Amino acid sequence: MTSHPSDSANRLRVRHLGIDTYQEPVVYMHRDCPICHSEGFEAQSRVEVALNGHTIVATLNVVSGGFLSAEEAGLSEAAWRLLHAGEGDLVTLRHPAPLESLGHVRAKVYGRRLAPAAFDAVIADVAAGRYSDLQLAAFVTACAGDHLDLEETIALTRSMVGVGERMHWGPGIVMDKHCVGGLPGNRTTMVIVPIVASCGLRMPKTSSRAITSPAGTADTMETLAPVDLDVARIRRVVERTGGCIVWGGAVRLSPADDVLIRVERPLDLDSQSQLVASVLSKKVAAGSTHVLIDMPVGLTAKVRGAHAAFQLARLLEQVGNALDLQVRVVQTQGLAPVGRGIGPALEARDVLSVLRREESAPADLAQRALALAGEILEFGGAAKPGNGLALATSVLEDGRAWAKFQEICAAQGGFREPEFAAYRQPVAAPRSGTVIAMDNRRLARIAKLAGAPKAACAGIDLHVQLGAVVEHGQPLFTLHAAAPGQLAYALEYATSQPEAVHVMQEAT
Amino acid sequence: MTSHPSDSANRLRVRHLGIDTYQEPVVYMHRDCPICHSEGFEAQSRVEVALNGHTIVATLNVVSGGFLSAEEAGLSEAAWRLLHAGEGDLVTLRHPAPLESLGHVRAKVYGRRLAPAAFDAVIADVAAGRYSDLQLAAFVTACAGDHLDLEETIALTRSMVGVGERMHWGPGIVMDKHCVGGLPGNRTTMVIVPIVASCGLRMPKTSSRAITSPAGTADTMETLAPVDLDVARIRRVVERTGGCIVWGGAVRLSPADDVLIRVERPLDLDSQSQLVASVLSKKVAAGSTHVLIDMPVGLTAKVRGAHAAFQLARLLEQVGNALDLQVRVVQTQGLAPVGRGIGPALEARDVLSVLRREESAPADLAQRALALAGEILEFGGAAKPGNGLALATSVLEDGRAWAKFQEICAAQGGFREPEFAAYRQPVAAPRSGTVIAMDNRRLARIAKLAGAPKAACAGIDLHVQLGAVVEHGQPLFTLHAAAPGQLAYALEYATSQPEAVHVMQEAT
Repeated sequence: MTSHPSDSANRLRVRHLGIDTYQEPVVYMHRDCPICHSEGFEAQSRVEVALNGHTIVATLNVVSGGFLSAEEAGLSEAAWRLLHAGEGDLVTLRHPAPLESLGHVRAKVYGRRLAPAAFDAVIADVAAGRYSDLQLAAFVTACAGDHLDLEETIALTRSMVGVGERMHWGPGIVMDKHCVGGLPGNRTTMVIVPIVASCGLRMPKTSSRAITSPAGTADTMETLAPVDLDVARIRRVVERTGGCIVWGGAVRLSPADDVLIRVERPLDLDSQSQLVASVLSKKVAAGSTHVLIDMPVGLTAKVRGAHAAFQLARLLEQVGNALDLQVRVVQTQGLAPVGRGIGPALEARDVLSVLRREESAPADLAQRALALAGEILEFGGAAKPGNGLALATSVLEDGRAWAKFQEICAAQGGFREPEFAAYRQPVAAPRSGTVIAMDNRRLARIAKLAGAPKAACAGIDLHVQLGAVVEHGQPLFTLHAAAPGQLAYALEYATSQPEAVHVMQEAT
Repeated sequence: MTSHPSDSANRLRVRHLGIDTYQEPVVYMHRDCPICHSEGFEAQSRVEVALNGHTIVATLNVVSGGFLSAEEAGLSEAAWRLLHAGEGDLVTLRHPAPLESLGHVRAKVYGRRLAPAAFDAVIADVAAGRYSDLQLAAFVTACAGDHLDLEETIALTRSMVGVGERMHWGPGIVMDKHCVGGLPGNRTTMVIVPIVASCGLRMPKTSSRAITSPAGTADTMETLAPVDLDVARIRRVVERTGGCIVWGGAVRLSPADDVLIRVERPLDLDSQSQLVASVLSKKVAAGSTHVLIDMPVGLTAKVRGAHAAFQLARLLEQVGNALDLQVRVVQTQGLAPVGRGIGPALEARDVLSVLRREESAPADLAQRALALAGEILEFGGAAKPGNGLALATSVLEDGRAWAKFQEICAAQGGFREPEFAAYRQPVAAPRSGTVIAMDNRRLARIAKLAGAPKAACAGIDLHVQLGAVVEHGQPLFTLHAAAPGQLAYALEYATSQPEAVHVMQEAT
């Protein structure tokens, strides 16, 4: 690090304020703080904060209240974490270097095509946390709305790969899958990986935790085995078993994506280019050679119609090809949740019942997983075209998939049975009739109110499927919660949202 | 207001935290707060906060630290002000209604033309504070880069007029002027208004305070007379004297613009449409019929070149015409500050010396003000074409302008002499040579570090002009400050920035 003449003067003790600004690093300084005056810092100034070799750029909030003194700098949760700060540490504060890459964002706003080097510059600054939320919003908005052509989407994806770590598996095929999302309970990964690995194809699957949903695959898997493995450990698991189902967070496969998501989520702009770059950058970084994309299509899923599905599939395939990644897209039904459980433990229960070939196993989850596994087996050359489903089915039915799953769990740190909730409450049909619709978004909301995914046992256990004929008063689903308060919140919302599981009265 | 079943349960006592988030309303709730759980609020959720008939939508920051209890809601400065909150007041918190107008923002992102009704819907929500900073950034970005055509720019301007108050002056001409900005010391308004009013044209001038500059016209005028007048008072001043120079803030002429500026400033996207809508919406709302635009052009001014100046001038005229506003644009030099002072009191001193026809009056300020006043007199029909400058000059020289200025000050609440700084420090030329450039942005920064505009007496007193030949050690300017600390900060920065007043050594 280069020295700076006024470093000694620009130091303050840090205070852990415990303010969660959702990932944006914020520094709080008192309006009487001498550094604010000497540096000319004002509310919303960008401030470089350095501590023990960690450097971040944070947005300044100026405090006049008494909870912070003029000799202290408060840090938001994100800033605290990124700086690895401890109470009372001395941080150095100064003006950050000008953000030259914003010129490329402006150029994009003006409709100009960006060269690969421009994306490299922007994404390097984004990954390093040098963009404020407003600047990220401007970049995301400028790229949304089909403003990136194919070449630019490829360049963006390459840039995102470039700033992250990258895993290498040596020569040969490395299978992967991804679900575009929006469908509660769609835990096919945990059935597919043991089937595919049993057939001799490597499938090192890194999964995400829930961001807005009641459970991610990593949350669900975690109720059965440890998922928080470092790269060396992941490698050992895959070498031993041929597969893994771990959390991708420890690997930092696409750090720029982790930053961009904090504005993409609240803006909800549905940018195809960014979705593609996000998904494929992680797959390339994970060292995959083949990716099967599960794309649920349905009114309350992420992809809502056939045209959008077709366009997105083509873009995924084209960008994948440019990055030496074989991509195949399979459209699936996205009308209603998959399986019966929504929430980590309840979804894990469904997965286990499929792998254990129990009578009670949800047929939709089994069928969906087998269809996708069959595709993957054909895609990776482990089954001849047309024979994938039969091979997948036999591997599940003869117990090899269940044995492989246990083997993977053991390698990841040991299998355990999921734990279920102490507090439960059925929600009854408000009338007799037919279940004509299920709203993925409302059901996810109810499961989250019940405490999922933080409380792994919390969520929803569905007792009916789309099209079921029900009697007035018959339980539609049961709420599961770890605490009576959360059960009550979820129940209040659930009873106020009859469209979550929509029962239409028969004409009389 | 409609009642809400869980209102009684959704109340918390407010705490004044004194956190300045630069205008974004933020509400701080503890992570153990029961309302967070029952409503499913998370960090960055949008929360409707109501108190005594005032309702705002705020962004949630979740607090785990000890400075806020689970039964309290902290408010940022902006939220506190908008709610007219008092310590311990009970606020009601709930989910805001869905923001339907975001659909128009998305449509604009996708390159679609927006109808006037779409702008009305967006701007109504913006003015009501229903957009988060991220959503504002998306709207501003989507409209920047020439993405609005002429019709859309007209519609946006009309929408912005529609949500604010509007002043009416009865039949006849109402003159106005506006400077596109970026030039320190450019206080021509305070010379022009008394000249124009002396010639029988009404000129009710509402000015702004500094946002990023060391002084706005309202700040400068305030060192000589009160400027914080309500609408009725402004009307009486103009009826009595024919003019006024007041702060526009009390009038709420363009409340949507006041909101948009909080993201436009940090994003710095240079959107012509938004600049035009911002300027002209205020002029229409102020009841003006004719506006002269002073457009300084120069490398470190806001408009940097001839092409940009031409395009912006045409857009201003076309949009003005559509709103029954006569607009005339005058390009002026924007290479260096106008007059000698930078900072409220020092700029006021320059203005006074021009009005009082003192020997020491800065000729550039006088000439510029006379040229613009002459244009206005011709534009409003008070002088024949070609005679405006002569008329303006005679009104200044025979003392009528100074008498009128005193009359206006008296009507606004009484004239006073500006007060000057106790702490001063000259900054000397680092070498002999010629002043080849002056950097408006760096000079503004130095004046702000010295304390302007909060300390009205603070700023810079320039001793040289562009092109001056100076000796090594000769004072280039003197820093003025209200406190020795600020003087030291400004001096440190000034000596580190020799390009602020760039002296080039003569070839020897």
